[in-house]
Amino acid sequence: MEHYSISTYEIIEALGTIAFAISGTFTAMQRKLDPFGVLIIAFVTAIGGGTVRDLLIGDTPVAWMRDMQTCLIILFTALATMFFKTHVQKMKITLFLFDSLGLGLFTILGLAKGISLGLNPGICIALGTITGCFGGIIRDTLLNTIPLVFKREIYATACIMGGMFYFLLLEINVGTVIAKFLAIAFIFVMRIIAVKFKLSLPKFEY
Amino acid sequence: MEHYSISTYEIIEALGTIAFAISGTFTAMQRKLDPFGVLIIAFVTAIGGGTVRDLLIGDTPVAWMRDMQTCLIILFTALATMFFKTHVQKMKITLFLFDSLGLGLFTILGLAKGISLGLNPGICIALGTITGCFGGIIRDTLLNTIPLVFKREIYATACIMGGMFYFLLLEINVGTVIAKFLAIAFIFVMRIIAVKFKLSLPKFEY
Amino acid sequence: MEHYSISTYEIIEALGTIAFAISGTFTAMQRKLDPFGVLIIAFVTAIGGGTVRDLLIGDTPVAWMRDMQTCLIILFTALATMFFKTHVQKMKITLFLFDSLGLGLFTILGLAKGISLGLNPGICIALGTITGCFGGIIRDTLLNTIPLVFKREIYATACIMGGMFYFLLLEINVGTVIAKFLAIAFIFVMRIIAVKFKLSLPKFEY
Repeated sequence: MEHYSISTYEIIEALGTIAFAISGTFTAMQRKLDPFGVLIIAFVTAIGGGTVRDLLIGDTPVAWMRDMQTCLIILFTALATMFFKTHVQKMKITLFLFDSLGLGLFTILGLAKGISLGLNPGICIALGTITGCFGGIIRDTLLNTIPLVFKREIYATACIMGGMFYFLLLEINVGTVIAKFLAIAFIFVMRIIAVKFKLSLPKFEY
Repeated sequence: MEHYSISTYEIIEALGTIAFAISGTFTAMQRKLDPFGVLIIAFVTAIGGGTVRDLLIGDTPVAWMRDMQTCLIILFTALATMFFKTHVQKMKITLFLFDSLGLGLFTILGLAKGISLGLNPGICIALGTITGCFGGIIRDTLLNTIPLVFKREIYATACIMGGMFYFLLLEINVGTVIAKFLAIAFIFVMRIIAVKFKLSLPKFEY
Repeated sequence: MEHYSISTYEIIEALGTIAFAISGTFTAMQRKLDPFGVLIIAFVTAIGGGTVRDLLIGDTPVAWMRDMQTCLIILFTALATMFFKTHVQKMKITLFLFDSLGLGLFTILGLAKGISLGLNPGICIALGTITGCFGGIIRDTLLNTIPLVFKREIYATACIMGGMFYFLLLEINVGTVIAKFLAIAFIFVMRIIAVKFKLSLPKFEY
């Protein structure tokens, strides 16, 4: 008898993928792409970060190619978002929460992959940040705008600080599982606070 | 005695490379790049799709680095297009046919590489579509426009449907060689019909 | 007792990294990114070329991930440039010299990596040019402009000619070390002459 169990971890990862796919779908629809273009952008937003991470460390074929699960989740999410767009738009807060959760999870996931390769902590944090942020960066580049990440309220900054927080927790001998959970929560909460209070890094003025 | 034979396959691949290089050269000349910029764009358009494919599956050094043939074909094509631009522009229909043939061939080539790695059929179709379309996507991104592929008449859609058609043919026990030939022809004809009748997927309106 | 020696080579490489990081920082500040965005662009400009090179040849984890040195140099350079921006701007000529030196060094470094893999000379020159130029290309693409490299005075052209010059030197039995030194100097001087006399390839007119 085959045993198939879905871990909390996998559920959160799927929710993060869904949130990123929705964000890609909406951005692409606003730029009036045809449905196929929308699908591609949804796809790229959801898998871009993990793909760049896997390429940089040489872990190929990259993650989304290993099974159909991620592709099917993105396909279904993008189609559903296109068909029920008015309804989905009303769920703005829910979406933002998923997106923040996805950001936290993807970041810590990427960071953990760096640790398992024996990379330097600073490099692991960079790898985590890349995993969390590059989907959005590629989306915006393909859509011909300066990536939002470079201008938005504390976003990548939350990833970097969350990564530092994770290593700090390990340093004081908190177990790996709890440290991961707390670091993901840290990024999640930091994003919510940043958006709620419209916090952003100061821009350069000339 | 060394034996060197050129297969039909290699000839069609070269024709596809030439067509993609010409399309890159024209697009870059219209944006008033200097000749070196034009060369780079011609190069990127012709090898972009295969390069992204090889990176994703970890087949490195990527295909065009293994011998000089592809580079020389692109170099020669780009230079010839720059010098004889008025003449080449008159061959619009011939170019379009080469481009469509190249699209079909590159797609099925990428798909076959996925199969040989034991990847899931859905992933193989994605890999084929990436091989066919990413040259144009990188070209347009570097030239600072929203990739044409996301907006144009049935283009990537033809790749995806051609890929599905290929697996359907395998399913009904058509041999690999014939299935490849038919799937390439399918994409080729679908592009011609789409352009002739100005078919395109509906865009999103707000 | 640990022995740690810094070679001339490493010093020049560090100077090149610094120059590229400064150029990225300035370009990003002019586009009014927030400090984190500026950091990312500084980073991408400095490591982009080497990263693309390592991805294409499959040498992963890519160079900058192997230790913290490169990251720390870029971080420190970008922060210092942001804080002392008026002062740094006055050093325009010094910066240009570093940038030209970096271009020469990165190009010959990439080329040498190609040779050590037994790649074809033409491919090695392409790899060197990619190493020298892709940092700037990715920087400009992310900042949503047509890459300067495609339009500027003799830039990538200097890399290609420097690469050819290197193989010519090897052909006439100049030793590797001297050939490298001369080829780097060639690119360095060619850039200076091109900028001083405002040389550039002719653009296409319609």
